[in-house]
Amino acid sequence: MHKTETIHARGNPRTITRADLDHYASKLKNWGRWGEDDEIGTLNFVTPDMVVRAAQLVRTGQRFSLGLPYDQKGPQTGGFGRLNPIHLMRRSGVDGAAGLRDEAGLRGADDWIIMPMQSSTHWDALSHIFFDNHMYNGYPITDVSSDGARRCGIEKTKDKFIGRGVLLDVARALGVDELEPGFPITNDLLDDVADRQGVAVGRGDFLMVRTGMMESRLQAGTWGDYAGGDAPGLAFETAEWLHAKEVAAVAVDTFGCEVRPNNSPGFFQPWHWIVIPIMGLTMGENFFLKDLADSCAADGRYDFLFTAPALIVTGSVSGPINPIAIK
Amino acid sequence: MHKTETIHARGNPRTITRADLDHYASKLKNWGRWGEDDEIGTLNFVTPDMVVRAAQLVRTGQRFSLGLPYDQKGPQTGGFGRLNPIHLMRRSGVDGAAGLRDEAGLRGADDWIIMPMQSSTHWDALSHIFFDNHMYNGYPITDVSSDGARRCGIEKTKDKFIGRGVLLDVARALGVDELEPGFPITNDLLDDVADRQGVAVGRGDFLMVRTGMMESRLQAGTWGDYAGGDAPGLAFETAEWLHAKEVAAVAVDTFGCEVRPNNSPGFFQPWHWIVIPIMGLTMGENFFLKDLADSCAADGRYDFLFTAPALIVTGSVSGPINPIAIK
Amino acid sequence: MHKTETIHARGNPRTITRADLDHYASKLKNWGRWGEDDEIGTLNFVTPDMVVRAAQLVRTGQRFSLGLPYDQKGPQTGGFGRLNPIHLMRRSGVDGAAGLRDEAGLRGADDWIIMPMQSSTHWDALSHIFFDNHMYNGYPITDVSSDGARRCGIEKTKDKFIGRGVLLDVARALGVDELEPGFPITNDLLDDVADRQGVAVGRGDFLMVRTGMMESRLQAGTWGDYAGGDAPGLAFETAEWLHAKEVAAVAVDTFGCEVRPNNSPGFFQPWHWIVIPIMGLTMGENFFLKDLADSCAADGRYDFLFTAPALIVTGSVSGPINPIAIK
Amino acid sequence: MHKTETIHARGNPRTITRADLDHYASKLKNWGRWGEDDEIGTLNFVTPDMVVRAAQLVRTGQRFSLGLPYDQKGPQTGGFGRLNPIHLMRRSGVDGAAGLRDEAGLRGADDWIIMPMQSSTHWDALSHIFFDNHMYNGYPITDVSSDGARRCGIEKTKDKFIGRGVLLDVARALGVDELEPGFPITNDLLDDVADRQGVAVGRGDFLMVRTGMMESRLQAGTWGDYAGGDAPGLAFETAEWLHAKEVAAVAVDTFGCEVRPNNSPGFFQPWHWIVIPIMGLTMGENFFLKDLADSCAADGRYDFLFTAPALIVTGSVSGPINPIAIK
Repeated sequence: MHKTETIHARGNPRTITRADLDHYASKLKNWGRWGEDDEIGTLNFVTPDMVVRAAQLVRTGQRFSLGLPYDQKGPQTGGFGRLNPIHLMRRSGVDGAAGLRDEAGLRGADDWIIMPMQSSTHWDALSHIFFDNHMYNGYPITDVSSDGARRCGIEKTKDKFIGRGVLLDVARALGVDELEPGFPITNDLLDDVADRQGVAVGRGDFLMVRTGMMESRLQAGTWGDYAGGDAPGLAFETAEWLHAKEVAAVAVDTFGCEVRPNNSPGFFQPWHWIVIPIMGLTMGENFFLKDLADSCAADGRYDFLFTAPALIVTGSVSGPINPIAIK
Repeated sequence: MHKTETIHARGNPRTITRADLDHYASKLKNWGRWGEDDEIGTLNFVTPDMVVRAAQLVRTGQRFSLGLPYDQKGPQTGGFGRLNPIHLMRRSGVDGAAGLRDEAGLRGADDWIIMPMQSSTHWDALSHIFFDNHMYNGYPITDVSSDGARRCGIEKTKDKFIGRGVLLDVARALGVDELEPGFPITNDLLDDVADRQGVAVGRGDFLMVRTGMMESRLQAGTWGDYAGGDAPGLAFETAEWLHAKEVAAVAVDTFGCEVRPNNSPGFFQPWHWIVIPIMGLTMGENFFLKDLADSCAADGRYDFLFTAPALIVTGSVSGPINPIAIK
Repeated sequence: MHKTETIHARGNPRTITRADLDHYASKLKNWGRWGEDDEIGTLNFVTPDMVVRAAQLVRTGQRFSLGLPYDQKGPQTGGFGRLNPIHLMRRSGVDGAAGLRDEAGLRGADDWIIMPMQSSTHWDALSHIFFDNHMYNGYPITDVSSDGARRCGIEKTKDKFIGRGVLLDVARALGVDELEPGFPITNDLLDDVADRQGVAVGRGDFLMVRTGMMESRLQAGTWGDYAGGDAPGLAFETAEWLHAKEVAAVAVDTFGCEVRPNNSPGFFQPWHWIVIPIMGLTMGENFFLKDLADSCAADGRYDFLFTAPALIVTGSVSGPINPIAIK
Repeated sequence: MHKTETIHARGNPRTITRADLDHYASKLKNWGRWGEDDEIGTLNFVTPDMVVRAAQLVRTGQRFSLGLPYDQKGPQTGGFGRLNPIHLMRRSGVDGAAGLRDEAGLRGADDWIIMPMQSSTHWDALSHIFFDNHMYNGYPITDVSSDGARRCGIEKTKDKFIGRGVLLDVARALGVDELEPGFPITNDLLDDVADRQGVAVGRGDFLMVRTGMMESRLQAGTWGDYAGGDAPGLAFETAEWLHAKEVAAVAVDTFGCEVRPNNSPGFFQPWHWIVIPIMGLTMGENFFLKDLADSCAADGRYDFLFTAPALIVTGSVSGPINPIAIK
């Protein structure tokens, strides 16, 4: 990654403090913007006409799954209590081969899954992260208890994750396979990449940002410290950029979207503090962007129809997905 | 349901025997049709140009979720070893309120789900049902073991569930809120409903058939014997109709798509025997069709863009989904 | 149950109020009794010499399991978020029969369990119930979070559930198969039964009280409202009796040990409020006492060696067990 | 471990072949020994009088838990599909602190566990390992399917794991902290250790064999390849010794009891092939023997009352336990 020095010069070396969190919390707060009872935040930006226009982006019929498999080969290592999905059979074909299903008149197979909702490609629901004692729209933090999320559960978004998708392929724009851990993607860089790609990011868009990190780890055959370790990603300041652009949601091909470490002693993932509870902006993590990015680079089209409806798990603070881009 | 007598006259009172299964198995078999290594069957009918045309059906930007919530209020009662989804928290807001996350520098919530893959709205993967000792395309039944499905796992379909959706609202066409349990939807009836609706079902379509059963049970506030009991649904003979139409997949607002009982002593769900392992046709179960059906009745348009990508669970014989119709 | 009227006359019809809870909390509190760091409460009553004497009760070598099976036939119906245990295979014999394990050089079977710790026969750990904002010994309620129990987890008791067991067979003493729901077992009745049986309950004993309820439901083949519904059981006042007797633990053949309802408007299970957090007395629920009780009635010996070590689940608020009585 | 060379000279360097398996299968087979319907094998050796005599071994009242905690710090790494136990809360104290339980009238906590039955200290049920197409007593391998074990499930043993325990502390006898991986414990060595300890192993005993391996890994703070890697343990020939001694069960402080590797190309764990399905001898794995061993060394008494009743999980091929030794 020969351009690193130049790139780092773009970064934000300033230490992020509680005052910065409070400043952004004040400046970027969307509480009440869509009513006192709103539970979906920036997904409100998406209007029916945007969906119609997004569908018109479908020209070749190419479909790309942006999901990582849900299985034991996933990136989790136990941090945050997250493990990789556990898949167990309840009935199987070999039962049938042994004649054990014939009395029932049908040879079939059934299975179970046991998993953290955050184990692979997923949306963070707005109930996933809190700012002090509140979640998005001012709901009290105690609305998320052992009973699940009374407010801002993922089920509230069930028909919302459809619209125009835009990919900003930062790694490719910078001529590298992957951005290095700790590399901050700044506002200027996002603008630059959009310019180079000839695409504009705007209101109601589902923005995907590619760092190349996931592909690198998949290629290496080992996740290393992917789960919660240092990573390239969105700089703290991009909260402001995303707020200005009025995107509907943002997703990255890393574990946590934002750059790590984020130069914020005492605060883990300061960007999370702002984006989810203050702005009500849904973020997607562990997106697999390789195939889509290759296609975009090939045809020069970086926008597409995007659908990523989360499984409707009542009261969940997260939503497992198999996101699809359609060109 | 005053039209019942007439309706039943359309039904097929003939007993379905092993000879019928063998006859259909011979007549409708798609093994090898898409190559010896194929694992997705009739999803192959969908071509990129169909996707492009399907996207052009989006005119108003209305979006409908066809998914039932994944929670303890679901229809499962233990049959087939299926229970309703179990949702447990690993971190919560009240932990944060108690100050237990501040050392970590972030107040967040995480959760788990434990569930049968077939517990709510889902696709049956082609590895879900067997005909004697084989699954679709002639793969041995022993390819589905305690290790999961080596062949025809749901992960093979990850970018395939996108295309033109068509709704046949049988209950509405017959002027009833719901078809009664045991009511068989025949080939003629499917044709009639399509005619009345002014829509044609064809190659590569994702067909949804509405019986009204789910809505009736939701309205009643009790599932009764919805899970595996008697139900209206597709008659055995519709396997032939679906084969002729070359649909990509079929989904119903019931537990098992086909009529129950299906007049087949000794064989449970004879239509399943044919549709999945012989034809390689994916079926969707427990679809929530009310809102979509109301819209279709209102605007007279029964086709739309349909996306229902299953969660990519490696080796799974089923795929939980939140299907979306976009008009 | 012809003796009911007489029996009810023994009951305590007085309404239990917050003042009663506070009175008992003040009177029966064992906080600090075994040191500020104690986490096992009345299990401290058991001394090594008691264990030696308990072992001397073994005279015939008869062994009785007091456990209910852990399976889908259990009593849970979803209340308190409790379901019956889910048992799933990870490897099976039929896999082996299909030749799928031969490459590994060994045909074996493995399995999983998914269950509430309280789903069948279990001890309530002292972290299971709180009095206002505290648990036993004054530990703050917030020591039990999504991370589990920091204090009074069941693992702290790992070598403690061994000693003299005593059975008080109340149903048999009263000449009935089962006490009826709502029937309160009072202090006098406990004394009477002990007298009739010729057994004394004392310091460090593991006391089992038989109502006959579980056997009745097992015989009926349906649990009815066993899980959380009305039940015979220990009257509120028995907290005082148990405190005076200095028993190590108490167990009953019902879902919740205490009589339900317990005549305490606004307070669910008032006896629980006192026994666990105030007294630090471990209670056992869903004990299967039939075989042991039959033996005791036959030989007139109501005390025995008792062992019921809980599975060492770190931070758990409950302990699944297979309790054993040895005579 | 300075005595290694001498020790290895005692080992059995001969390659174990299929002929050896067949020879032992023929010579040591206990099928039918306790009737055609027997499902507990060598546990039948334990008679009531043995239990009485075992109880008489209790002289000081000391109690030792031989269980490893069930938690995320356990030894599992995914091999055989085994993971460490997952503990999740369903209700917690912090919920109570937030006032969320007061409407219910009781502040309580509930929790769940999700785990392989083999994840920590456990018995292997006789349905756990097969010899070709059979399990113990000639039951067909297909009796263990996705539905669980129809025969020889752990529930059949519910009142059997009580009797005289004997510890053979091989590591201590050889003057080492731990036997090294690959070190075979031979018949002669077992006899030698018993002699040195002044204890006789006989019919109906529950034999524990200490290698020191678990303690070493616990002390190191890392399990390394404990789960399924090379380990000291019982040599193949000890099947014959255990058969002759007529022990009720055998347990070791390692992952798999037998020495690994066991010099048996093509056969994984050849001792397992014989001991469980041929002899019907239950084995215990991952026993924590440190505290007990220290006590035995101190007082020179190597036998004691032993109880280790498995959780009654219907149809399970394994039994989680918290074994207890009482002296």
